[in-house]
This record gives sequence, C-alpha cells and structure tokens, in this order.
Amino acid sequence: MIQGIPPVLKRLVIRRFNSSKSSSSITNLSIANRQRLYMIDQVTPGSIFFLPHGTRIFNKLISFMKLQQRKYGFEEVITPLIYRKQLWERSGHWDNYKDDMFRVDGVDLEKEEYGLKPMNCPGHCIVFSRFDRSYHDLPLRLSDFSPLHRNESSGSLSGLTRVRKFHQDDGHIFCTKEQMEQEITSSLKMIDEVYKIFNIPDYKLLLSTRPDEYIGELSEWNDAEATLQTVLKSTGKLWEINEGDGAFYGPKIDIILKDHTGKEHQSATIQLDFQLPNRFNLEYTSSQSSQKLNPIMIHRAVFGSLERFLAILIDHFNGKWPFWLSPRQALIVPVSSNHIPYATEVLKTLNNDLSNSINDYKFHIDVDSRSETVGNRIKEAIKKGYTYIIMIGDKEKESRTISLRKLSERSTEVLTPLEARSKFIELENTYK
Amino acid sequence: MIQGIPPVLKRLVIRRFNSSKSSSSITNLSIANRQRLYMIDQVTPGSIFFLPHGTRIFNKLISFMKLQQRKYGFEEVITPLIYRKQLWERSGHWDNYKDDMFRVDGVDLEKEEYGLKPMNCPGHCIVFSRFDRSYHDLPLRLSDFSPLHRNESSGSLSGLTRVRKFHQDDGHIFCTKEQMEQEITSSLKMIDEVYKIFNIPDYKLLLSTRPDEYIGELSEWNDAEATLQTVLKSTGKLWEINEGDGAFYGPKIDIILKDHTGKEHQSATIQLDFQLPNRFNLEYTSSQSSQKLNPIMIHRAVFGSLERFLAILIDHFNGKWPFWLSPRQALIVPVSSNHIPYATEVLKTLNNDLSNSINDYKFHIDVDSRSETVGNRIKEAIKKGYTYIIMIGDKEKESRTISLRKLSERSTEVLTPLEARSKFIELENTYK
Repeated sequence: MIQGIPPVLKRLVIRRFNSSKSSSSITNLSIANRQRLYMIDQVTPGSIFFLPHGTRIFNKLISFMKLQQRKYGFEEVITPLIYRKQLWERSGHWDNYKDDMFRVDGVDLEKEEYGLKPMNCPGHCIVFSRFDRSYHDLPLRLSDFSPLHRNESSGSLSGLTRVRKFHQDDGHIFCTKEQMEQEITSSLKMIDEVYKIFNIPDYKLLLSTRPDEYIGELSEWNDAEATLQTVLKSTGKLWEINEGDGAFYGPKIDIILKDHTGKEHQSATIQLDFQLPNRFNLEYTSSQSSQKLNPIMIHRAVFGSLERFLAILIDHFNGKWPFWLSPRQALIVPVSSNHIPYATEVLKTLNNDLSNSINDYKFHIDVDSRSETVGNRIKEAIKKGYTYIIMIGDKEKESRTISLRKLSERSTEVLTPLEARSKFIELENTYK
Repeated sequence: MIQGIPPVLKRLVIRRFNSSKSSSSITNLSIANRQRLYMIDQVTPGSIFFLPHGTRIFNKLISFMKLQQRKYGFEEVITPLIYRKQLWERSGHWDNYKDDMFRVDGVDLEKEEYGLKPMNCPGHCIVFSRFDRSYHDLPLRLSDFSPLHRNESSGSLSGLTRVRKFHQDDGHIFCTKEQMEQEITSSLKMIDEVYKIFNIPDYKLLLSTRPDEYIGELSEWNDAEATLQTVLKSTGKLWEINEGDGAFYGPKIDIILKDHTGKEHQSATIQLDFQLPNRFNLEYTSSQSSQKLNPIMIHRAVFGSLERFLAILIDHFNGKWPFWLSPRQALIVPVSSNHIPYATEVLKTLNNDLSNSINDYKFHIDVDSRSETVGNRIKEAIKKGYTYIIMIGDKEKESRTISLRKLSERSTEVLTPLEARSKFIELENTYK
C-alpha cells in the first residue's frame, strides 16, 4: 500500500494513456468531413459520433487488433462501465483522479456514488481476484475494448486527439517477476509488427525511469530498469531515457509518433506496476510449495487511444486508405443504364452474395448507377475517397471483364470479376 | 409534439426493450459458473463482467448479427454514451424517465447535467438531422451495439435477465410512410431467419394496439394497425392482439419466447414511432418537388437485450453449445506425453496457425497435455462444456488421423486433421 506520495505525483502517473505531446488537432477535419467518417455535436462535447464509414474503419482496427492479441495470448473480457466509489478508493483514483472522472448517481443506489470508468485496470483486478490463481495460470493476459470517459476540460477538447469518451486496445498482463522480461519483449515485438503493417516503421521509444518519490524497494527498481534497458537494446530501435519521469509505482516505455507537421503523439505504452496488485491483494500460488505471491501487472496498449490512432492514420494516409482498411473499397460505375444488370452481377460476384458465413470476405463496394455523367461520378468517388473504381462499359460487358482503376495511382487493369475478387482477398490478407 | 399525456403512460412506453414478462432469473447460474462465462460483483450490481469464454459467445452473437444486418441494409454507427440534459428534455426522457436514468456530472461541465443513455434513439436522431436527407436516402437503417444503462432498483436485479448495463442489437429505420409495410415485413423476416438458426422456431407475436391516450391522427393509427395486421397475417405465424397496450406514439409488435420452465421472455421488438421525428424536427426532401416531410421511425431489435438473449440461449442449449457458438469448440487430449508433438501439430492444422488474415477461421481449440488420466481430463472437459474431444493416441499418431468425439452425442469419427478442419469450417458456415 502506498503512503505519503504527493498527490501531484500520483496524478502524473494516473494520467497515463490519455496524454498527448500536442493538444492541438491534426488537420484532418476536412478529410473526415469529406468522407463522412465522424461528427461531433454540442449535445455531448468530446464524445465522437462515428458515422457508418468511420465505424467501418474503427471496427476493422478492432478486428485486426483482436487477431494480433490472439496470437500473443490475450483473452478478451467485457467489463462494467460504472463502479461504486469504494472501488475507486481502493485503486487510488478517488483520492487522486476524482476531478477527472465523471461521477454517476441515481435514485436507488443506496446513496452511494459511482464513477464512470476512466481506465480498465481496476475492473481487471476484480476479475483476477475472483478465482484462485496459480503459477500455471500466469501470464494471464486480459484485453478489453471498453469505452472510457475522462472529464477533460471543454477548452482542451480537440477533434479525435483529445476527447472525453475514447476506446483503447487495452491489455493487462499479470505475470511473475521472472516472466516480466519475456512479456515486455513480446509487447514491443507486437507493437513493431503492428506499426510495420500500418507502414509506420519509425517511432521513438521513451524509457521513463524512477522518479524522486517512489514506492517499493530501490533494488527492485534497479532490476526493473535494467530489464527494460536490456529489452530496449535488443530491439535495435532508437530509444531515449526520460530520467525520473516514470510512474511512482514503476518505470514505463512510451511510443511516440510524429504526424506530417512534425508534432509528436504518444500512442503505444508499456507500464510496469508494482502497486495495484498490492492494493487489490492479488495473489497466486507459486510453484514452490503453496506460497502466495503478488503478480506483477503490466499495463500495455498498442494503438493506445483508438480515436487518436485513427487521427494519426487519417493524417498518415492523407485520406487515401489502403484497400483493407478502406471504408469505401470500390465503386462500380456502369457507363450507361444498359450496363446496370452486368454491374449488379459483378457486385454479387465480388461480394460473394450467396455466402451466409461470418468469416467470408465482405467488401465495401457500391454501385453508382445514377444518370450523372461518368466524369461527375468519378469526381465524386475521388472526393469520397474510394480506393478503386470499377468501370463497366460495352467492352467490359461483352468480354465479361471489368476495368479496375486504383484512384491513388491512376493505373488500370482489366480483370474478370473472379480475378478481381481474388485480388481483393489477397489485398485484405496482406493488409495492403 | 406531445402534450397532456399522463406520465404513467409515457413511462410504459419508454420502458420498451428492457421489460421482461418474468423478473426471476432463468436457472442457468450453475452452467454459467461451471463454464466461467460471466461474473457479477458488488462493486457494481447489475453490470455483468463477461469472462473470456462468455465474451467469445457475446462477440460471436454480435458478428453474426452484423452479418444479418448487412444483408438487410443496416449501417452501423457508434454513438456517445453521455448526453446533456437538453437532449433528454427534447426526447421526453427527462420528464418521463429521469428516475430510471443514471445522471452524470463532472467539474467542468458548465454546471449542466448529463444523462447516461438508456437507449440509442435520440443519438440516432442527432445523426439523421446532421445532414440534408432526401427520399433517395430512405430507408436509412442505422444499427448500434452501444452499452445502455438503466437504473433498475437493486431488488429487481436478476442474473442476465434484469440488469443495469446491457447491450442491444439496436436499430432504427427512418423511412417514408409508403416504405413502412415493406420495412416491417423485412424486420419480421429477419427475426424469423435468425431464430430458426438458433433453433427457436416457435415464438409468439404480440401486436399492441392504440391505447386510450395517444397522439397523432386516428386515421393514421388505423392505417398503421391495419398495415401491421396485414404483415402479421402474411407471416403464417401465431400472433395475438394485446388491445390498447401500444405505445402512445405508435403500435408495436413484440416477440415472446418461453424458457424451459415455461416462463415468457420478451426478446425482439418492432415499434412504430410517429413522435421522435417530430420532436427532433427530422425532415427529408420528398420526391414531389422540394416538399419537406417527416420520416417514420421504426425501432427494432432482433435479439433485444444481448444479455437476456444469452440467458435464453444458455437455457435453450442447456450449456451444450452448437459448435459455431461454442466458447470451447474442441479439446485435444494426447493420451500420453509422447503424443504431445503430434497433438501440437494437429492444433496448428485445425487453427491454420500460419494465417495472418482477419477473415480466416480461428477456432477455440485447446490442448490438455497434463499428466492427469485420460478419464479425468475428459470429465473436466465435459464439465467445462467442450463441444468436441479430439483423442490422440498411438493409433492416431501412426495413421496421422484424429478421433473426433462429439460430447453431446457420444459418437466418434476418425478423420485426418485437414478433414476435421473442413468439417469445422462447414459447421461454422452452416451455424451448426
């Protein structure tokens, strides 16, 4: 249990995840508006309304991350959003973070206050503590995509980067001291794999070390920092030390990305925590006889805030989404009305419309058969950010082919509908 | 705009979706505990912690429903959870539903109160009203899986069936009066298709008609009720009239399921709403010149509350999950330690471990290679609810096959690992 830690320090620590090196928005609003990705309304400042096309990207990011988490041994849980004050007192949030939390009350709550969760860790501690745990069960890796709320001041709100409601690809690893190094290595490997897929190979790693005020044993800190340094060195990546900027309960590694203006944004994070396991009295039976030990807790996120990561992606791709992530993967444009039946047939082939399987590929493909000129329809498709245009004219109809044009490259291929479907599947499978 | 409607009536209406014919829990707690599907804790009464295996079922239900919604032309949105009081005043909730809502406040909210949403409709009205809409855009079908909160009294809370935090496969259809019949027909068709897949072919349809106190024109009501009756008759299903029990803003159809004890539970619903579109001043440009008209709003859900539907499924399948929905699809049991390498190979084949594609089949298959007796391991597998057991002994290892035993049927097949994978894919694709 911690005692005598200055509130300012505790606060610094608990503010993890939601901080940004820059409070000003990436200038992606015009792309987001043109593509109708999301909207904000004064009925709830700082909470995003994801419109259908923004939701498609958001969902794809989550499906993608669930697959990665599965490879790395995470198990997803869905945990409550409101918790009684007593939980937040136990976790330390009520003392140190109360003003940044939304408080909740209702008539039939036995006069007890609730808090709307700003992070998932206390809920995951409740899950850990419910069952008898032994060393066999460790590492236990829980993931959670719950919406989180933080009561940011209205003046600080900014687009997708500083919000009141957000989601994380949150995860907590409960492990033994001996497993710590391997888990941190894996976490960094996962981050690197993911960022390469998004074509973000360059990022800065920042190691924050023991602050002046800290809890725990000095030798424990020295060991932990030495472990982190060993792991960081083995990555071969650029990394820096942020002396004395660690959390009072443990050191951490943050990942810093730059947007096209050079502004820095914190995304992924890996944080060691020697404290919450104590506060929640978490224990496991060790392999040595039946001794009870506290696990180490590692807080980690790869995207970090999904809202902020989406802002970074809009900036990074400049609205030109790779096929797999695109909310508008292709637009079929029949040149005139007598091409519409074949266009409809092509759509069915591409989407495999007869399939009723959850796992089958379902692409986001539209048909624009309005009587507008082809030029106007293509212009609008460009504005909306379609990845491919599929032209269907006399030649295509007769030869049972399609002309597939990638808008960002202005290259055109002639393919059969089935060849195009195979190409789309290949693009999705390779995250292109 | 409504005026002079007695609060008790308004309340009845707004209580839709979360009501249950029975307030007592289906006796599924022992199955849920044995299979570790979910837990409840006094730090937040009425909010479910979905454990990893419960989360798997929950997520499968959502993926499944998203596929159905896609076929029926729904577009998913993700909308905020907290909204300023002014929104709830506009929707009518603040006057009529305030005591059943969790109120939210924080320090920097310009002294304005917020409400934690009990339903998605007002948020969807905000989305509708943000853009110019024309008859081309209708029907607009929005879906949403947001967590919802209702401040049920602690005495009424019960397992998964009466909770404070829940999710719906919620959807709102904005359409013209002419499109109404077709949309209701489609909604009933979707419900029927879904319930057949879950092997719940028998359910009761209940038409609730105009109450004594109502808003709108009598002729409008008569037309709407006649439309609903026409649609109901065309289903060939059993249906009943619940005279005068409609909402004050429009008639509705509820779907009633029975659990194994004969208790009735409301699940799906289809509700016509002539009122919210007025309250939110929703308009579309009609095809006739540029006249502005109010759309009709249809509230519909197929599962209804996902939590309650899960309770119904636990009861319905008695914990013996069909393969596609099972959180523990198969357990590989190597007879002795020298069968472990082949067991590991089989696992890789079944899960297609080399695949890094979001869309590929990923089954929930475990290996139990502990040194326990085969009998004990099978006993535990039965207790946990595995759908299949895969035995790996000398015979299997030598012939490069597996023995696949379905626990609910006690039948055994000998297959190659690839044949088993094809079988599993087929089971998932056909929802078996």
